[in-house]
Amino acid sequence: MKTRLTELLGIETPIVCGGMMRVGTAELAAAASNAGALGVMTALTQPTLEGLRAEIEKCRSLTSKPFGVNVTVGVVTTEINYDDIVDVIIDSGVKIVETAGRSPEPFMERFKSAGIKVIHKCVAVRHALKAERIGVDVVSIDGFECAGHPGEQDVGGLVLFPAAAQALKIPVLASGGIADGRGLAAALALGCEGINMGSRFLVTQEAPIHEGIKQKIVEMDENQTRLIFRSYKNTARVYRNSVADKVAELEAEGADFGKVHHLVSGANQEKAWSTGDIEAGMVTVGMSGGLINDIPTCEELVKTIVADARAIINDRLAAIAAD
Amino acid sequence: MKTRLTELLGIETPIVCGGMMRVGTAELAAAASNAGALGVMTALTQPTLEGLRAEIEKCRSLTSKPFGVNVTVGVVTTEINYDDIVDVIIDSGVKIVETAGRSPEPFMERFKSAGIKVIHKCVAVRHALKAERIGVDVVSIDGFECAGHPGEQDVGGLVLFPAAAQALKIPVLASGGIADGRGLAAALALGCEGINMGSRFLVTQEAPIHEGIKQKIVEMDENQTRLIFRSYKNTARVYRNSVADKVAELEAEGADFGKVHHLVSGANQEKAWSTGDIEAGMVTVGMSGGLINDIPTCEELVKTIVADARAIINDRLAAIAAD
Repeated sequence: MKTRLTELLGIETPIVCGGMMRVGTAELAAAASNAGALGVMTALTQPTLEGLRAEIEKCRSLTSKPFGVNVTVGVVTTEINYDDIVDVIIDSGVKIVETAGRSPEPFMERFKSAGIKVIHKCVAVRHALKAERIGVDVVSIDGFECAGHPGEQDVGGLVLFPAAAQALKIPVLASGGIADGRGLAAALALGCEGINMGSRFLVTQEAPIHEGIKQKIVEMDENQTRLIFRSYKNTARVYRNSVADKVAELEAEGADFGKVHHLVSGANQEKAWSTGDIEAGMVTVGMSGGLINDIPTCEELVKTIVADARAIINDRLAAIAAD
Repeated sequence: MKTRLTELLGIETPIVCGGMMRVGTAELAAAASNAGALGVMTALTQPTLEGLRAEIEKCRSLTSKPFGVNVTVGVVTTEINYDDIVDVIIDSGVKIVETAGRSPEPFMERFKSAGIKVIHKCVAVRHALKAERIGVDVVSIDGFECAGHPGEQDVGGLVLFPAAAQALKIPVLASGGIADGRGLAAALALGCEGINMGSRFLVTQEAPIHEGIKQKIVEMDENQTRLIFRSYKNTARVYRNSVADKVAELEAEGADFGKVHHLVSGANQEKAWSTGDIEAGMVTVGMSGGLINDIPTCEELVKTIVADARAIINDRLAAIAAD
């Protein structure tokens, strides 16, 4: 399935397994890439620069196909030196980087000199246009439905995707609210050149989280997420569990972030991922969880999505358009 | 363009011009129907039963094609006798009714006896399933992007449409966030049988509102709406003007509805519609306003949407699926 995105990145299908904190390991990225999608490792999932270097090497040993490394800039944590991370990525010969959070502007010159294609994730057309101006190759635009940070404007993908695709010359990836071939066909209809999925790849055999969490996402419906951190202007969409409800309650009382921090700690999130206890911490998942009903391998997933999108286009849509 | 919806309703295109309070006149409904869409008049726009009867007659005199009448149940107003409205609709020989607000259950037996096809607008899969159970013929599912009342669950159309289409046996109309052929193709890809548009038909030559308002919608982007009335559990999406901002400010202070009522009065809304002063009152418009860039006739609009959707399906999507 060829689009401007697949041509640009040298991948077989217009599907990206976007960077997920604590989940974007070499194994998952390689599995997605081997399936014909673009797998993306997350740099910040590795605690050290040596660890990152080793993880990139591992990914390369697991797949001969293109993969990417995600660098999320501006994450609240202790002293991340992004310059060093960028150095490791470039030294390791990575050819595709997914940036998120702040603008990748400070690193663009180095990325471009190294022949790296940059996919920038953002949540508004205004930011997407800026990314295009500074030389980003692909924008992945995140709609209101997405897991993690949808921004503060709350524009659904149904409107945001065509608005972005129309405003930009570079290829646009539709991100948030997509989990299947229906979503891929819709994104292409709206003018995007592919889809970027997190939650859907989280619920695959290869995702390094406990089966219990995957099962909970299979069981959830589209109403099982909620927004938190709006009062800190850092809105996040997460699974609606007791932790998220407690955070929302504290926010409604005007609590500052210091008061909720212990609830949403990385350690608690890790605990949920590793023990399968969905109530152990904050669990980042998008509304697309409501459309996820199985736990396939990455290869099964990508094959099914492409086959379903093809069938929708060639059979259903073609028949409707013919009349 | 044939779908299960067009077959069921006897219309030429899978496009509905949904009922809009104060806008859904015989002229607009007839213009939409003459263009091959389903035009829908709004019963409550007429102040008396005699007025409603006359407006239906007028619509019939303006078009020989199917049209519908919207009955929004549960609107806050003075002593509406819905039974009388339903009587007028049935007596007038109307064959398609669009219900919204509360469940149409109390009227279903009479509608069905009169051979009326019922389209019920709702905002959640749970309500859609109930509507199907009580004999509704079509569900129009309203996503988070929609103008007016999106409900309190905030599920974007990108997720809500496929979730509803998959859960229901009856045809589903995608509503909210759609304004063009891209949206029609996407809705069909997501499993819906057509689209229901309000804001887009509001910005047509035939819509009975001041050109100044239409122009403001042409100029707006996707960030120019906001939600109000959330604190009253009656959330509404409206144009982000000084009135909406003031309402939001009062709500943030905990004001009860009595305090904001004068700001959002029907008289002020009428004033905005009729004078073109977008700051005169509450202006109901959806995020799709960000995708609206012209003021065509209904006929031009419907033709363009169908032609664009066909081109997307037959050219763009077919080429991508072929590779």
